[in-house]
Amino acid sequence: MKSHSVLFLPYEKKVKAVHGETLLRAALEAGAHINASCGGGGVCGKCRVIIEQGNVEGGITEKLSVEDREKGYRLACQSKTIGDLTVRVPVESAIDSSIMDMAITARKTARITEMNLNELKKQNLFMPPVEKKYLELPPPDKNDHLPDVTRLVSFLQLEHGERRFLVGLPVIRKIPETIRKENFKITATLARPVHEGRKTRIINIQHGDTSMRNYAIAVDVGTTTVYAQLLDLISGTPLAQFGEFNGQISYGEDVISRIIYAEKPGGLEKLHQVIIKTINSLIGKLIRKSGVDIDEVSTITLAGNTTMTQLLLKINPAYIRRSPYVPAATLYPPIDAYFLGLNLGEHVTALVYPAVSSYVGGDIVAGVMGSGMYQSPELTLFLDIGTNAEIVVGNKDWFACAACSAGPAFEGGGIKFGMRAAKGAIEDFSIDPSTLEPMNLTIGNIPPKGISGSGLISIVATLFELGIINSKGKFNPDLHTPRIRENGGIFEYVLAWKDMTSIDRDIVITEIDIDNLIRAKGAIYSGFMTLLAEVGLSVNDLDRIILSGGFGSYVDLEKAITIGLLPELDAEKVTFVGNGSLMGAKMSSLSNHIRKNVVEVTRKMTNFELSETSSYMHHYVAALFLPHTDINQFPKLKQRLKSRNLIQ
Amino acid sequence: MKSHSVLFLPYEKKVKAVHGETLLRAALEAGAHINASCGGGGVCGKCRVIIEQGNVEGGITEKLSVEDREKGYRLACQSKTIGDLTVRVPVESAIDSSIMDMAITARKTARITEMNLNELKKQNLFMPPVEKKYLELPPPDKNDHLPDVTRLVSFLQLEHGERRFLVGLPVIRKIPETIRKENFKITATLARPVHEGRKTRIINIQHGDTSMRNYAIAVDVGTTTVYAQLLDLISGTPLAQFGEFNGQISYGEDVISRIIYAEKPGGLEKLHQVIIKTINSLIGKLIRKSGVDIDEVSTITLAGNTTMTQLLLKINPAYIRRSPYVPAATLYPPIDAYFLGLNLGEHVTALVYPAVSSYVGGDIVAGVMGSGMYQSPELTLFLDIGTNAEIVVGNKDWFACAACSAGPAFEGGGIKFGMRAAKGAIEDFSIDPSTLEPMNLTIGNIPPKGISGSGLISIVATLFELGIINSKGKFNPDLHTPRIRENGGIFEYVLAWKDMTSIDRDIVITEIDIDNLIRAKGAIYSGFMTLLAEVGLSVNDLDRIILSGGFGSYVDLEKAITIGLLPELDAEKVTFVGNGSLMGAKMSSLSNHIRKNVVEVTRKMTNFELSETSSYMHHYVAALFLPHTDINQFPKLKQRLKSRNLIQ
Repeated sequence: MKSHSVLFLPYEKKVKAVHGETLLRAALEAGAHINASCGGGGVCGKCRVIIEQGNVEGGITEKLSVEDREKGYRLACQSKTIGDLTVRVPVESAIDSSIMDMAITARKTARITEMNLNELKKQNLFMPPVEKKYLELPPPDKNDHLPDVTRLVSFLQLEHGERRFLVGLPVIRKIPETIRKENFKITATLARPVHEGRKTRIINIQHGDTSMRNYAIAVDVGTTTVYAQLLDLISGTPLAQFGEFNGQISYGEDVISRIIYAEKPGGLEKLHQVIIKTINSLIGKLIRKSGVDIDEVSTITLAGNTTMTQLLLKINPAYIRRSPYVPAATLYPPIDAYFLGLNLGEHVTALVYPAVSSYVGGDIVAGVMGSGMYQSPELTLFLDIGTNAEIVVGNKDWFACAACSAGPAFEGGGIKFGMRAAKGAIEDFSIDPSTLEPMNLTIGNIPPKGISGSGLISIVATLFELGIINSKGKFNPDLHTPRIRENGGIFEYVLAWKDMTSIDRDIVITEIDIDNLIRAKGAIYSGFMTLLAEVGLSVNDLDRIILSGGFGSYVDLEKAITIGLLPELDAEKVTFVGNGSLMGAKMSSLSNHIRKNVVEVTRKMTNFELSETSSYMHHYVAALFLPHTDINQFPKLKQRLKSRNLIQ
Repeated sequence: MKSHSVLFLPYEKKVKAVHGETLLRAALEAGAHINASCGGGGVCGKCRVIIEQGNVEGGITEKLSVEDREKGYRLACQSKTIGDLTVRVPVESAIDSSIMDMAITARKTARITEMNLNELKKQNLFMPPVEKKYLELPPPDKNDHLPDVTRLVSFLQLEHGERRFLVGLPVIRKIPETIRKENFKITATLARPVHEGRKTRIINIQHGDTSMRNYAIAVDVGTTTVYAQLLDLISGTPLAQFGEFNGQISYGEDVISRIIYAEKPGGLEKLHQVIIKTINSLIGKLIRKSGVDIDEVSTITLAGNTTMTQLLLKINPAYIRRSPYVPAATLYPPIDAYFLGLNLGEHVTALVYPAVSSYVGGDIVAGVMGSGMYQSPELTLFLDIGTNAEIVVGNKDWFACAACSAGPAFEGGGIKFGMRAAKGAIEDFSIDPSTLEPMNLTIGNIPPKGISGSGLISIVATLFELGIINSKGKFNPDLHTPRIRENGGIFEYVLAWKDMTSIDRDIVITEIDIDNLIRAKGAIYSGFMTLLAEVGLSVNDLDRIILSGGFGSYVDLEKAITIGLLPELDAEKVTFVGNGSLMGAKMSSLSNHIRKNVVEVTRKMTNFELSETSSYMHHYVAALFLPHTDINQFPKLKQRLKSRNLIQ
């Protein structure tokens, strides 16, 4: 087969591409990342590349302006290689991983909470489910022929008052040599049962005394990013943390496009391998950073949404996206980590957070557990906003939950210059009321590349508060500034002129963008209100609101209320947990109490399918305004708008 | 590296051998089997081959007569390849697998017993531990979003009154597609718990109704031979059975030489792979013969001695052969069959019979279970004779057991013309008292190749009863016949002149052979008597004697008593179970009752280490005569000998 040489800049990565292969596929093989929101279908228009040398076939669609076409821009997913090429991936099309290796930290202005180690200790819940015991066994002799395993088990029973044990094949395989290396002085790793009355498993043995070296790994398997922490189970503290983009991004940005990819021949296997590879990469980094011996890692806990979990476990997710939206399972058994392909010892069991339904997954359950909501008497609403928003309301006695699809607006999708919360993203914004000139604040303080989700909310809230757009999201035609202009029949506001950007293009926000945002926030607001109504509560009944997730932690609460994403909440009641999924995975690594309760909590969670709740559509239509059809639901905002004569 | 071409006849198998490699190793690689009792150490002298073309270095030892050397005979394990070769493996050195594909059937003259299917049914114990249920689940709809697994489990709970379930990852992976193939009509395979109150595991699901197709495989993992049966779990009947030599034979004939091989670098891995390969070959034959779909095999049960079990599970057996003879474990957890490398479905759990000690293994426990001894009120003695003899005495309330090393005489080792019970082996014998001419009966009725274990007993008993040898096993020098001759200072009796044989050599029995037999039978007799004495019983207290094992099932009871292998037992009390290990594996595939009891029975079995029981040596020395120092222990025999004036 004829093939061509393709060089990807700025990565300097070269690959041989078969004649006719798409540039997106070639980039994937070269390891040159290109944003491909729609999974290569030519729909999202994100995978813009510049052909610097050579020619491709196709790649021109209505997603590219005439100007861009002339500059050599093409859509990578629609361009076929027909000769040798040099291709530049422009910054806005490349995934920026500069923010990956830190935790998602919540906004400094907000109260941050998590059920932390001290609280665990105070409540007597710091009991890692995996424990090590150093034992000096009596050696066998002519009057004592006990088999090695029986010797170990009997000693634990007699000397330590332990009861019943399960011993798996990996330990039996290790025991003859290990037990004799230091004259029957060994350390046994005991995995405590989740259910009372069950057997403790002896999952590992090591010669000598290693009882002070016992570690766990906690992983948040996000659709976009995967975070992993290495925890010291003696002190309870994290020793290292890393984040990486989920390698599946190259196969589609959201869960639906991943599911579609998984339905292709070999797709499920591929996506499974890719997420395992991402996690293994993180494990490698954790081990190198911390200097911990991989054999001392005793357990791994993973949390993710239902689709991510099914892909992680190689379970066909096809029916998650098809009515009536049924997952294969919501409870997952403990699984040998090596069976999944994880680079951990044979003794390590992978524990996977259970889900509630197709769209309320283990990441949300992890947040409910990790935030301590599961044992709090306070009536709490837990909200995780991303492409989907998941909402849980309840207290230690009951829970109701729902999910709604917000669309990708908060993660940059459907927004002309939308991007993830990475370097160069406008994340905060203000405007001079007289000149209408903007002030853009970007992540990393570099010239802007685009608009993050929180930036989008900030921009729209500001434009609305100042009357630059109206409650329908339309620009006031009476304002005169070159920043407001019409472009192909669509009004837009220029946030940054092209010579002030990192991307050499004017960065704008259009009425279409605003409309997409309104629909996204409307979906979440109506989900929030519908769920409360279904359980007979109002916003004022809530003792506490927990915002979770990458976006939830960045959002400016007041501005989120201004656009009507959230109802008017008492800011004192709102707390931010950052990455709730990672927190839950970590907490259940530190406390068997959490692990013991998680299944019960999951069972208590009543799931509402909003699409089948008749009042949802009513709420939704009413929410398709800034902030809402009924301004009286936002009395403080109403007051402010009144004071500026923007409403009567 | 220089290499040579070696052709093995009669197999017509050719292999490239590295310069200097032994012929034994080359034969192994070529797949040409050569008996190698001592594992290639040049000790046993069994691996005789004839160099038909070319030359080797070495290969000549005192194990070969001058005559043989001149004929081109060499020991394969001592011969190094230094050029291209044509090598013939003579019949007596090749393993004869002609008897493999049938069960070990007991002598027709003996009563045969096993706890058969009718008895199981009569006792209401025919309850295979793996059961299939056909279910018509309600499909999900807009008001029913139950996850697939929850749907299955809830239905079983509500409609079938089942209680708690474990569902493993393989089932979760299968369920989305399987459940929808025939509109939520499925068959679930349920593995019942061994312990009351534990959860039932759902190990497989299949679309449609397959509830009448449910199969099990039972395997006896013998040191020499491996037998496997395919069982229909609906009717309880065996559909196919095959036997094969254990592939490990090429690495040493007995457990000790296998352990030594396993201690070499890579040796354990190799022996593990080889036994798995043997079992997979048997599985393949069972599937082809029966026409059963491999996906319908729901369970596999394996029984073997402690060393075979550890090699099967890839557990280092080194400490089994070293004082104080400690195995790694005697209880083995259920193991995923695919994890062991068995060619069975992902849903299949391998159940491995527990052992009692290093030398009383799962094969013996299987015999105790399968023969029904475990639930019988009768005081029973179970005896399995092979290279080792294992003895169990007791009834449903208690068991004592012991093992003694008989040496390889009963399997042909240490006997000049000894061989296994294969075609051409003399298995029965009589003699004309006046002419002293023999009558040899061989397996397969072909000219003799050698002497089987039962043949050996028959020959020695006959020679003794007729006064041809005395109670010390020495030939009467006063008898005149060309058949009794001296050869290098050792007297021998010619059983077959060379032109009457299949091997073109005189087949003889020598005083050394007889001496080896006396030591072997002495070990077993004294083990038998010592164990009885330790528990305060005598032979007359026994209600029942069960003889098990390939040798035990062929032996002529009266002749075994004549040589003093067994005490004078009432023949009515003696039953033969054939392959007790296979029978036990089969029975626990058919009855969860047996499975539930096996661990408890194993725990009840008190193991006596005969080497540390002071009276054992006393019994042994007294037993080194035909039949015994104290002829009064054999009153009937004494009477017969008296009637022939052989004793006073």
